[in-house]
Amino acid sequence: MHPSAKLEAFLANSSHLQTPFVVVDTDVVAQRYDALQAALPMADLFYAVKANPGRPVLDTLIARGSFFDVASVGEIDLCLNAGVTPDRISYGNTIKKRGHVEYAYDQGVRLFAFDAEPELDKLSQAAPEATVFCRVLCDGKGAEWPLSRKFGCDPDEAERLLHLAADRGLKVGVSFHVGSQQGNVEAWDAALEIAARLARSLMGRTEPVRLDVVNVGGGFPGIYQREMPSIEKYGEAIAASLARHFGPLYGDYLPRIIAEPGRYLVADAGVLRTEVVLVSRKHEMDEKRWVYLDCGKFSGLAETMEEAIRYRFRTPHDEAVENGAPTGAVIIAGPSCDSADVLYEKTDYRMPIALAEGDFIDIISTGAYTTTYSSVGFNGFAPLKDYYI
Amino acid sequence: MHPSAKLEAFLANSSHLQTPFVVVDTDVVAQRYDALQAALPMADLFYAVKANPGRPVLDTLIARGSFFDVASVGEIDLCLNAGVTPDRISYGNTIKKRGHVEYAYDQGVRLFAFDAEPELDKLSQAAPEATVFCRVLCDGKGAEWPLSRKFGCDPDEAERLLHLAADRGLKVGVSFHVGSQQGNVEAWDAALEIAARLARSLMGRTEPVRLDVVNVGGGFPGIYQREMPSIEKYGEAIAASLARHFGPLYGDYLPRIIAEPGRYLVADAGVLRTEVVLVSRKHEMDEKRWVYLDCGKFSGLAETMEEAIRYRFRTPHDEAVENGAPTGAVIIAGPSCDSADVLYEKTDYRMPIALAEGDFIDIISTGAYTTTYSSVGFNGFAPLKDYYI
Repeated sequence: MHPSAKLEAFLANSSHLQTPFVVVDTDVVAQRYDALQAALPMADLFYAVKANPGRPVLDTLIARGSFFDVASVGEIDLCLNAGVTPDRISYGNTIKKRGHVEYAYDQGVRLFAFDAEPELDKLSQAAPEATVFCRVLCDGKGAEWPLSRKFGCDPDEAERLLHLAADRGLKVGVSFHVGSQQGNVEAWDAALEIAARLARSLMGRTEPVRLDVVNVGGGFPGIYQREMPSIEKYGEAIAASLARHFGPLYGDYLPRIIAEPGRYLVADAGVLRTEVVLVSRKHEMDEKRWVYLDCGKFSGLAETMEEAIRYRFRTPHDEAVENGAPTGAVIIAGPSCDSADVLYEKTDYRMPIALAEGDFIDIISTGAYTTTYSSVGFNGFAPLKDYYI
Repeated sequence: MHPSAKLEAFLANSSHLQTPFVVVDTDVVAQRYDALQAALPMADLFYAVKANPGRPVLDTLIARGSFFDVASVGEIDLCLNAGVTPDRISYGNTIKKRGHVEYAYDQGVRLFAFDAEPELDKLSQAAPEATVFCRVLCDGKGAEWPLSRKFGCDPDEAERLLHLAADRGLKVGVSFHVGSQQGNVEAWDAALEIAARLARSLMGRTEPVRLDVVNVGGGFPGIYQREMPSIEKYGEAIAASLARHFGPLYGDYLPRIIAEPGRYLVADAGVLRTEVVLVSRKHEMDEKRWVYLDCGKFSGLAETMEEAIRYRFRTPHDEAVENGAPTGAVIIAGPSCDSADVLYEKTDYRMPIALAEGDFIDIISTGAYTTTYSSVGFNGFAPLKDYYI
């Protein structure tokens, strides 16, 4: 997966731009949206705005007919201001202030996540006509970005809460997240089996309740170091799991299926350009060099935390390397005075021996989770600049 | 260590303010500066601006006669705009763009850190009349914030570089950092022994070179969970080490001693107020509750990374707890949709059983490394607001 021709042209003519910056090709975003919609024809795609809330990204996806998954009232306003109608917005954060639920409901949002009884209380009081989907815990096996137990509840608890929600007259759904950057296309199956079990329980009520929505979350990958299955494989696996678990229950008539892609739509659409500030050794005899960039953990590359996301780097010497120029092992670090601002130390990265101060390095597939992760001004460095083309 | 009366008064009257926010009492900053100067009478104190670059903090320290340690040209401008004269600024980042060295030098800055030959090359070319201090690696044992090998070089390499710098006519110094939030007052001794060894090597030249500066760095603690030695103990230990290692070399005439306090001056001067958004269990039978706050890892509490800094929390139910009201084990998390935004999961925190949505929680000693660590808008949440009183 190479950067698009449009990205390459921009980068070729950007030596006058201050680094670090990210540039995002919105055509790639549109292509990805179309590819995912083709792979998941049964699903409404709710773009996870947090992945990259850049206005041109939103505009591109609005033109495509996308729906939007938001994490906060800030993101609701962002969407509404961009012209998204509130019926296309899902408030997917299970952690919401009561006043924020009220605000969202006033704006017309009718789709909300929850995973606990106190949150359901807020929703039944402040969003009485809404569809509320209960997030079930997943183990995140196969995912590159660590999935903690922060979101979701155990299936037994979900069952209790869904009945409670139905008792209160709310429309109900089930959601889960298999973990960001999920490499296993079968990861959705176990969760869909649980979702079907919950659907069955609701159908067993004296007055049967149908699931209004099944939210299969995100997890569709960008292309970093590791090869990933094609998006068609994900679509086929999810369709097969839906048929397997929901077919016996509903026949051909599925609940509304929604998905929340973030990274998949924008990661590969972006390139982050940074400059080498210093290449050094801690001792003359050290084999490993330290490469210090002008972008680090606190200026956009937060996903290098615990070396979880392993980006690809491109240097001006790569062609020479292909023709035999030597490379050597490196540790890669950011420019701040924080000793924790080291990007990769355990992961085996090599860079050309010729690499030197002033060289530009392009970090590939950095359109997701970079711009807004940047700190406001840690160590006096400006936030990461972003361009959309 | 309780918040100051001024902080308490502000918090008591701040229920109308949107959370989360940090409030910093600059009187405490002034008291801390005086206490540290009294404990280290031999040292010029260079405030590490990155700890909290709030203008009222700078103004307070300028009035006290402080010097300033900066990490970037952004922080140089901040200091100059506040009225700091350039002779009171040290550019303490070992990772500097060539253009930034030139800018600093043009502004009149004459004190620079380095730890590698390519960086020394930049300095000797772009800052010919400067004093350059070489940072030596320390192991950071006893420190709470992880000290990586990112900064500093091995002592042998430092010796080579210092001779090289002297050859080029630069004034030379030695610096080190024993690790942030250092609990062992003897941690400076080993590094000062190395510094003296380097001084001896320079004195042994045909034309002897004296160290111009010994920079003992920072590491002086704020008060979090753990008891810490008094600041006098740090001063006594450092003075004893200086006498032990430098006395035989220089007698009573020491090189210029500088220190770079950050956390010690501002941490305990601040309180971060956050609101409880949700208290829940993943299963009805779980003993541990999840407490979700409206401030997390990406909105100011980045130092909870790997649960390194363990803050103290204050709830509205603490008096009831003292009178016998029950508490229970909790996991504490932030409000974003990022599964990595969990503050404390392994550390044993307990909170009142009565804790509920809408309660304010005050996080004590949060004046350092909070405001500028905040992301620009991750998940659509606004950056952390700060007040200075």
